Amino acid sequence: MSQRINNFSAGPAVLPVEVLEEAQNSLLDFNGTGIGIMEHSHRGAAFSGVLAQTIADCRKLAEIPDDYQVLFVQGGASSQFFTLPMNFLSEGETADYLVTGAWSKKAVAQAKRFGTAHVASTSEDRNFCYIPETAEYSANPKYVHFTSNNTIFGTQFHKEPETPDGAPLICDASSDIFCRPLDIKKYGMIYAGAQKNLGPSGVTLVVVHDDLVKAGKLDIPEMLQYRTFAENDSCYNTPPTFGIYFMGLVFKWIMKQGGLKEIEIRNQQKSEVLYSYLDNSNLFRATADRGSRSLMNVTFVTGDETIDKRFIEQATAAGFDGLKGHRSVGGMRASLYNAFPPAGVKELVDFMTDFEAKNS
Amino acid sequence: MSQRINNFSAGPAVLPVEVLEEAQNSLLDFNGTGIGIMEHSHRGAAFSGVLAQTIADCRKLAEIPDDYQVLFVQGGASSQFFTLPMNFLSEGETADYLVTGAWSKKAVAQAKRFGTAHVASTSEDRNFCYIPETAEYSANPKYVHFTSNNTIFGTQFHKEPETPDGAPLICDASSDIFCRPLDIKKYGMIYAGAQKNLGPSGVTLVVVHDDLVKAGKLDIPEMLQYRTFAENDSCYNTPPTFGIYFMGLVFKWIMKQGGLKEIEIRNQQKSEVLYSYLDNSNLFRATADRGSRSLMNVTFVTGDETIDKRFIEQATAAGFDGLKGHRSVGGMRASLYNAFPPAGVKELVDFMTDFEAKNS
Repeated sequence: MSQRINNFSAGPAVLPVEVLEEAQNSLLDFNGTGIGIMEHSHRGAAFSGVLAQTIADCRKLAEIPDDYQVLFVQGGASSQFFTLPMNFLSEGETADYLVTGAWSKKAVAQAKRFGTAHVASTSEDRNFCYIPETAEYSANPKYVHFTSNNTIFGTQFHKEPETPDGAPLICDASSDIFCRPLDIKKYGMIYAGAQKNLGPSGVTLVVVHDDLVKAGKLDIPEMLQYRTFAENDSCYNTPPTFGIYFMGLVFKWIMKQGGLKEIEIRNQQKSEVLYSYLDNSNLFRATADRGSRSLMNVTFVTGDETIDKRFIEQATAAGFDGLKGHRSVGGMRASLYNAFPPAGVKELVDFMTDFEAKNS
Repeated sequence: MSQRINNFSAGPAVLPVEVLEEAQNSLLDFNGTGIGIMEHSHRGAAFSGVLAQTIADCRKLAEIPDDYQVLFVQGGASSQFFTLPMNFLSEGETADYLVTGAWSKKAVAQAKRFGTAHVASTSEDRNFCYIPETAEYSANPKYVHFTSNNTIFGTQFHKEPETPDGAPLICDASSDIFCRPLDIKKYGMIYAGAQKNLGPSGVTLVVVHDDLVKAGKLDIPEMLQYRTFAENDSCYNTPPTFGIYFMGLVFKWIMKQGGLKEIEIRNQQKSEVLYSYLDNSNLFRATADRGSRSLMNVTFVTGDETIDKRFIEQATAAGFDGLKGHRSVGGMRASLYNAFPPAGVKELVDFMTDFEAKNS
């Protein structure tokens, strides 16, 4: 076994070692079938079993009620940005968006293609370094959309926004799904590209209430209707079988860690190690407001681009990969998704402490 | 190493053993980076290198000229069925479709959402058991679409259809891409879901001429415009990185086998072993007309459903998996994609010979 390094990538991102090892074992022969997991027909018994188990485990892990569908689609969150309004929004109608970063803005832009997108709140005034506490909703929004975690800006909603009566809450949870318990019943729909907390890129998890499935338009291509996936167990056409299999292994891995409550404690502890160092540092500081800080993506700067650059170079050379921040914030970003090992955070803080001593 | 069995699945389907082994080695540590292939950022050096190499190898393997783009999209061929007319067909305009099976029909149904779909030829009169030799095109089609290989019915075009001047030829080659050399210059666009000849399901290869990229509509979601993928090296959003990596390994594997010419010879030899047995059998017969037979999917029946059923049961028990034919044809189907080993076909014929002796 070769040495694995600390991978702080914002996504695709670090995955659990034992899940990777199990996937490795299934590539040439899944479960004694003599056929690799990627080589099984999506309509055969082996994959059908995987699919059913993955859905069952997802329901169990997140306590998803029976009147919600668990679907696997393709195209990433970026495809959901247009698929959502294409299904639920028409000319003359309004959907409300909470704008807390670059991804929310992209979602708004797609909604405008189909109807009116009302920005009910935004934190753009301070470069998205906080989550607004209030929102001004339109009179009768078709739905309210928010981004639960903002990878680029290191902020996260710590409770669901209050929404107007009757407006389904729709959440892009790509970068924090299953990082903590969540009450699905508050949502009309949650979706997440897999490549941060769930598995390889190329599969998107959609958990959607039956009422929304039924409400979707019928005069759009079948491949863009949620009901097509709901009515065909996500197998109307060939689904990304390996991604679904892998996501199933991740669900089992989370349950083995103790489930979402235990994962939340671990994520709080992991991020706290870094935030607490940052709050006491004379060189580095966190960029997000305290109450809005993300458990998943910790963004920080020194305030001096030359030192930021030097830090990233030296950290990379020392085996801390993927720390360069997004250009819209600059500085550094340490992504600490579910699978990121606690020891790696301590190693980073030790390295930063050492760097600070040498650069103060 | 456990025993691998003969996998005749129509897709997802058998993949090359040495490619699976290389992928296995990259899951926890790609190329000595200390990070697994699925865990690398799509914008980092490691994956950028994989992407560039995969495109370069695709161009080399299929001799793709510079004025064609090599793109990786999601959603399978089923998503191309609507994306194509959404981009290239408007109300009042006509696109021509050659209808040679279930997939062509699905493509026609999507085109009708956007404009007029003219069926220029069809072989539905004899349950799609042949490829029509002629077509009656409309006056000025925006494009001509055909399905080069029909997985369900075991038929295949053995040369490109002649098309009206100026109408780009668009091909769904999901089930036979790179099974033989092809002259890309005859096409406006070729697309293929990966899960038969190229890799795992969840990534679709699109080879498209620059003129079509430019001709695509601008008033549709960015994620459905080919130019979005062309202008962003398929990385406008996170692409299915593992599928692209895997496809790149398959391109290298085909080149190592001698390239497309050599692969064609091998595919001809493999299918000939089975067709020649079928033509001499007193129990089994091929269902497709001789001149239209597929190199990839060999469909056959005994003419007696009870015997078909018994054959499939006994074959499955003996380690020949995935032989059950599609319900629209019945009987059996042996899919012999590029990665299917020649020895497996001989083993099947031996088994069939034995079965025939016992059941005549």
